[in-house]
Amino acid sequence: MNTSNASLNERIALATQTRFGEALPLPTGTPGADELARQLEHSSHRKWTEQPVDPGLLKLLFACALSVPSKSDLQQADIIHVADRAKIKAIADLIPDMPWINNAPVFLTFCGNNRRIRQIGEWRGKPFVNEHLDHFMNAAVDAGIVLSQFIRAAEAAGLGTVPISAVRNFPRETSDVLGLPEAVFPVAGLCVGYPLEKGHITARLNLNITVHTDRFDESKLKDNIDAYDQRRHKLFPLRKQRHPQRYADVPFYGWSEDKARHYSVPERSDFGAFIREKKFSLK
Amino acid sequence: MNTSNASLNERIALATQTRFGEALPLPTGTPGADELARQLEHSSHRKWTEQPVDPGLLKLLFACALSVPSKSDLQQADIIHVADRAKIKAIADLIPDMPWINNAPVFLTFCGNNRRIRQIGEWRGKPFVNEHLDHFMNAAVDAGIVLSQFIRAAEAAGLGTVPISAVRNFPRETSDVLGLPEAVFPVAGLCVGYPLEKGHITARLNLNITVHTDRFDESKLKDNIDAYDQRRHKLFPLRKQRHPQRYADVPFYGWSEDKARHYSVPERSDFGAFIREKKFSLK
Repeated sequence: MNTSNASLNERIALATQTRFGEALPLPTGTPGADELARQLEHSSHRKWTEQPVDPGLLKLLFACALSVPSKSDLQQADIIHVADRAKIKAIADLIPDMPWINNAPVFLTFCGNNRRIRQIGEWRGKPFVNEHLDHFMNAAVDAGIVLSQFIRAAEAAGLGTVPISAVRNFPRETSDVLGLPEAVFPVAGLCVGYPLEKGHITARLNLNITVHTDRFDESKLKDNIDAYDQRRHKLFPLRKQRHPQRYADVPFYGWSEDKARHYSVPERSDFGAFIREKKFSLK
Repeated sequence: MNTSNASLNERIALATQTRFGEALPLPTGTPGADELARQLEHSSHRKWTEQPVDPGLLKLLFACALSVPSKSDLQQADIIHVADRAKIKAIADLIPDMPWINNAPVFLTFCGNNRRIRQIGEWRGKPFVNEHLDHFMNAAVDAGIVLSQFIRAAEAAGLGTVPISAVRNFPRETSDVLGLPEAVFPVAGLCVGYPLEKGHITARLNLNITVHTDRFDESKLKDNIDAYDQRRHKLFPLRKQRHPQRYADVPFYGWSEDKARHYSVPERSDFGAFIREKKFSLK
């Protein structure tokens, strides 16, 4: 990889132009610009080479991921390394539209774990009085933070990944396969391997939509969403209109039409019941 | 920074020894090892130099953070850059035991945003039928993932950070200061600046506790927690016993005793009510 500053400037300008619709400059003298470029160029990968992932490297990546900040030092995220191909297949069979799960050289599941803190309370003779929504959220967000850093570590080391939140479509089955006890729940799976091909940068909402100064601002949101739909369509038009049995084809099919259709059908409406079965009150 | 491989090997061995109690090797030929070392050496920072953060750099870091994967491409995380010092002070005043909030050169708030997808549904004439727990969790976890990548980008660029989940102790006040409307909620604040001093590596649970192969395994958990308490105590003894009015001093005060005491007192028991006021059913 050419990591000269000129090349990094170009990579960052190109990646931000593609991702956000504006070419951002790299301020002179910024250290770590190779990592910034790697983040901006992030893409998901669903096809991998035959090259196995060295077990020592994988362990090091777990260590990297678990070096993140943790809410109040409670350390409520765990990683399940699903090494048994039969278990990977059992999960993959639940989600037939994602064949990359079964093909992934490595498959992980990132879990929220509120169980340990409850056990520690028992062992240390203290009552556990935090059985409410924030308690659940802490663990879910901690798991997301660990997942995010794992992806960064993996990409730095030349690997490609794709997260699989669809394990939450089948939370009981996933939980059974992985032997998750009370108060431990899956947040997302992750496929990992050496990418077969270069990925592509997904266009994201322009920064004027997702970054606010001082106060949440949606004064121009509708126009900004329309502009994003157009920009994204020019780069990567969505070719398949979702739920065609329910909605007539439209001449312009942008991101917002797709997402409105996506969430017009219930998804994981049973996940709350699963979490309550895991002994969360969510009150 | 010396980024020769010998030096990186040493840094990684030392960081993993301190963090997890075992010195992990860097497999020969691993690319991106400088980023892996940086992750392993992560520490939070609460004191900063006078050096301001260049606005162009900050914008680039926002772009880096928002380049993460997003659940089903729904893009439900927003960043509020709290630039107005009076607003920062208003938040800092709510949390007087964290004076670093008011001193931070930059203060951000990462939010879950389920509002946009609801608005898009209205604009595109589609019903919104996903008002349940997973919907809330998607946005919360997405915000955590963006926060995590922001921290990585900031550290690569030489900055130091500390997350402030305590904004959720005062969710209504935070929400008022930042003008967060229905279905937008704070996940965590983040202080950012150039660190005044070198941080220290926090000892984390040994990897035999948080990383499982194939099935969740807690068969040796109690012994492993005891061993972690001892290891951590040797590195950084906890000097102040929590809730002394409630619990007698104990001769050995480890992490698990501290966390058992921590969660023996209700924390954010009202957060669920706040989220429901923001029009989440969480069913």
